[in-house]
Amino acid sequence: MSRALHCALVHHPVKNRDGDVVASAITNVDVHDLARSARTFGLTGYWVVSPIAAQRLLVERILEHWRTGSGSRRVPERTLALSICRPIESVDAALDAIAAEAGARPELWITAAKPPPGKSVISWDTARARLEGEGAPVLILFGTAHGLHPLLTDRADAVLPPIEGHGYNHLSVRAAAAITLDRLRGTR
Amino acid sequence: MSRALHCALVHHPVKNRDGDVVASAITNVDVHDLARSARTFGLTGYWVVSPIAAQRLLVERILEHWRTGSGSRRVPERTLALSICRPIESVDAALDAIAAEAGARPELWITAAKPPPGKSVISWDTARARLEGEGAPVLILFGTAHGLHPLLTDRADAVLPPIEGHGYNHLSVRAAAAITLDRLRGTR
Repeated sequence: MSRALHCALVHHPVKNRDGDVVASAITNVDVHDLARSARTFGLTGYWVVSPIAAQRLLVERILEHWRTGSGSRRVPERTLALSICRPIESVDAALDAIAAEAGARPELWITAAKPPPGKSVISWDTARARLEGEGAPVLILFGTAHGLHPLLTDRADAVLPPIEGHGYNHLSVRAAAAITLDRLRGTR
Repeated sequence: MSRALHCALVHHPVKNRDGDVVASAITNVDVHDLARSARTFGLTGYWVVSPIAAQRLLVERILEHWRTGSGSRRVPERTLALSICRPIESVDAALDAIAAEAGARPELWITAAKPPPGKSVISWDTARARLEGEGAPVLILFGTAHGLHPLLTDRADAVLPPIEGHGYNHLSVRAAAAITLDRLRGTR
């Protein structure tokens, strides 16, 4: 038994290069890649967060193609991955939906290439151990553009460490999410 | 001191759904994502393998935009990642180029969602340990489409284990490469 783990790819509120709040565009490959990584590591849900209805509709169309359309007949493994993916208007709406399903308020964990100032970072071992056993669900946020805005990071119950490279720290969100989920849930 | 590590994203010879040899198309996001992951984990080179000259020219144009074009002024971190990326016509040509630069024939390591029959798989710990210390360079192959063809896997000096999920094993090559490099070279 382990805690239910969810992840969200956040397109708002995220930062632009100057640190201002923006809504970024949803990318098809992000929908697929994070769904496949989330499914691989046994996550319960993958939420694609955007306040823009037309952007969420784009996700619905992608999902429809792969869940019941011609994509599902051509690549059935993709149907399985995308079955846990859901577009939603905000992180709060995702927290509410998870709470309604699980009967317990989820913890909010965040990821960042640079941890936000004033927040302490838990170790990977601690994070992994916390996910084992029983407890409330956990929702991990991944940011697009230049990262999660303080409106979200200020509310985090836990901050995961950055993925340290050899003097370079600019992974794609697809790569960072894959590595994060492997570190938290992977077996070797 | 550790051994020089290279990776290659192979577009030929790879398998289609029926196991036949095909040349797959190069994808812009793969060029970027694997370069960023390779740079993060201190790789010496990232080779994009295609026998199709027009496809390699596409890679050259992407690289030019980010190395010296407007992309390099807008996102300088991307220039650093793509500086280790080179298109090349075959895995053998990549092996020759690495050998010429390093003065030693590289070992050929392969990755696979399902290890090829008849090949023994080394553990992640063994692979990680083998990369430490001195020795010949190592070239790790990642396959596109339905994976590396036996023409390549038959020649492997080492086979890395599949990335085991929770009953699902269909990661994107971008995610699989990120996790592989993290398991081999990541620090926590």
